[in-house]
Amino acid sequence: MLDPYGAFVPHAAARLEGAATGPLAGLSFAAKDLFDVAGYVTGGGNPDWLALHAPAARTAPVVQRLVDAGATLVGKTHTDELSRGIFGENAHYGAPRNPKAPGRVSGGSSSGSAAAVAGGLADFALGTDTGGSVRVPASFCGIYGIRPSLGSLSLEGVIGQARSFDTVGWLAGDAALLARVGAVLLDQAPTAGSPWQRLILAEDAFAVAEPETQDALEPALDRLARLFPKVETRPVSSKPLGEWLRHQGAVQGREAWSTFADWIDRHNPRFGFEVADNFLRGRQVEDAAFEAGREFLAARRREVASWLDERTVVALPTTPFPAPPIGLPRTEMWQRRQAVITLTCIAGTLGSPQVSIPAGEIGGLPVGLSILGARGTDGMLLRLACRYAEVS
Amino acid sequence: MLDPYGAFVPHAAARLEGAATGPLAGLSFAAKDLFDVAGYVTGGGNPDWLALHAPAARTAPVVQRLVDAGATLVGKTHTDELSRGIFGENAHYGAPRNPKAPGRVSGGSSSGSAAAVAGGLADFALGTDTGGSVRVPASFCGIYGIRPSLGSLSLEGVIGQARSFDTVGWLAGDAALLARVGAVLLDQAPTAGSPWQRLILAEDAFAVAEPETQDALEPALDRLARLFPKVETRPVSSKPLGEWLRHQGAVQGREAWSTFADWIDRHNPRFGFEVADNFLRGRQVEDAAFEAGREFLAARRREVASWLDERTVVALPTTPFPAPPIGLPRTEMWQRRQAVITLTCIAGTLGSPQVSIPAGEIGGLPVGLSILGARGTDGMLLRLACRYAEVS
Repeated sequence: MLDPYGAFVPHAAARLEGAATGPLAGLSFAAKDLFDVAGYVTGGGNPDWLALHAPAARTAPVVQRLVDAGATLVGKTHTDELSRGIFGENAHYGAPRNPKAPGRVSGGSSSGSAAAVAGGLADFALGTDTGGSVRVPASFCGIYGIRPSLGSLSLEGVIGQARSFDTVGWLAGDAALLARVGAVLLDQAPTAGSPWQRLILAEDAFAVAEPETQDALEPALDRLARLFPKVETRPVSSKPLGEWLRHQGAVQGREAWSTFADWIDRHNPRFGFEVADNFLRGRQVEDAAFEAGREFLAARRREVASWLDERTVVALPTTPFPAPPIGLPRTEMWQRRQAVITLTCIAGTLGSPQVSIPAGEIGGLPVGLSILGARGTDGMLLRLACRYAEVS
Repeated sequence: MLDPYGAFVPHAAARLEGAATGPLAGLSFAAKDLFDVAGYVTGGGNPDWLALHAPAARTAPVVQRLVDAGATLVGKTHTDELSRGIFGENAHYGAPRNPKAPGRVSGGSSSGSAAAVAGGLADFALGTDTGGSVRVPASFCGIYGIRPSLGSLSLEGVIGQARSFDTVGWLAGDAALLARVGAVLLDQAPTAGSPWQRLILAEDAFAVAEPETQDALEPALDRLARLFPKVETRPVSSKPLGEWLRHQGAVQGREAWSTFADWIDRHNPRFGFEVADNFLRGRQVEDAAFEAGREFLAARRREVASWLDERTVVALPTTPFPAPPIGLPRTEMWQRRQAVITLTCIAGTLGSPQVSIPAGEIGGLPVGLSILGARGTDGMLLRLACRYAEVS
């Protein structure tokens, strides 16, 4: 297979022919190399993980469901190591090239999935999103991506990271296809009409974005707002998002460490330094900080539930800026990472669905606008994304 | 070159013919891949270090001095990553095989140097010893090794780690050769006669060794003691060695982080998890702990100087046990590492020379007995090692 963007992993030239008929017949898709495909080792973005695991005995149900619906799996795609990264710069395998922004990262951790879709190598792709891993590459690659409601899709046969936040998501080049895939994967009745009533412009989230990003997203935001009878500006929370980030990071970090600690302690695997650093920060989270984090996150869910009903949609920038250049120093990337996940931790904390829409450009570099709803409103968000695309 | 023990690095088939005449004429030696050899990249045990550095412009003076004295450099040898390790299990390149203890680690970080000498592939070899990296592999491979007095050999053209502790050392299969190399490398007049007067059996150090090791070393210790007019048993210090270890670890760790921080932050290199963990522990050492560590170490130097004169020699086990098996879980190796460096930190703290002598066996596995002296007594220790070998 041609792979001009370095999107696909070389060790698993997996192909599963889609069923002859079905709602996705004739479409192609790729799956992040965290999803099991029978007969291939799931590599997880780490060469030691790859070397130390046996081929998967069965295909992950979510992959199988797409194949049964007619879509053909054409390959497995690169990921940050064990999904721990937000930019797609894998220390072992390099960074997939961003088809929409040459010289820039594709975003991660679903880096290859986004590059494959943005580069036209697959119609859509599966990713995972624990802390932003579908939304960030969607924003950076100028495509659509959804992190669905927590718990809505099966994680069976998928390398998880942090169970309070892990989700399976997907990416597509247009809103209609994003919604078609959702109709297959989500156990929700299709949303009819225009149930959305109120748009919240998330003041605190927009404040995290760079001024150029705020400006670039403004026309899209105007078009989106015109679809709503009511538009309000307010912060997501009475608490600073930096505090959300700190607590979410403590809980996710500790959970990620506990997911992989046994394997790491057994095998002393090689990691890029940043990934090791992330794991070790998680290991250091003490019981009290972990519990305080969980309580803080629960309080934020209660706080937001008081105003985020099923007819309300929150608009926010997906990322504070477009894709950074490949190969910046680690410490600079760490600063940018903190800014990115200050935004993506919102849906993570709430368990909310979030759809990133390609909505602006800064000097030719794409950047996404997101819509976020109450848990369970995935269908409404997908439909709203389609409506938005129709009027854009 | 035949390399049945995996001692040599494949990327630098360096050979420097020794001068036709000189005190080391006709001998062969290997150099740890931390030493510059003109025309070759110094790999430092890490593939990203190797990839990101240019070939050395000139040969390290200590290597050149050996060549000028007649010895032929036959290759460069494996090391733990950036000398951060004590067992020789390099996550990227594997572990050299221990010629004297099949299935066991060779010890590190001068892992390949010890394997090359123990396996007869070089007459002697250069290593470095910051926290035990010559002494430990000497003990595990059943050969002689010296960590010389701090500051006695040039570190120019050598990848350093922690400047308060870094030394260049060497390993050889017999005491006479160890001393011959010393006569070339050390700027000290050869020691004549038998200046040693008093042997101290270091009670606190022997207590760290496993009972089997204590038993295995006893005959050698008896032979050694017979060379002294006076023999005393006493602890090295009024402070527990565990406290030495903690402070020495804080100072070395912080220094090692500051040596490599810029490079790590710039390039996000791949490391085995344990190495990353060590670096991050060093990064976390706060100013107060670093200063407290330095003060503690200075106090120990004063304390020991009060009784360790130039005619006194301290006997201690080099390692608490013989070489562990290759491939144990990381966390188990970490426990063993702590025990090993509880012994090796003594010379590190004092800046003392220490010679490890192959002195015992446990079930066929070699283990070393060490002699340690006041700073500057390198020549005396080398001569004493020769005397010991003559009577053994």
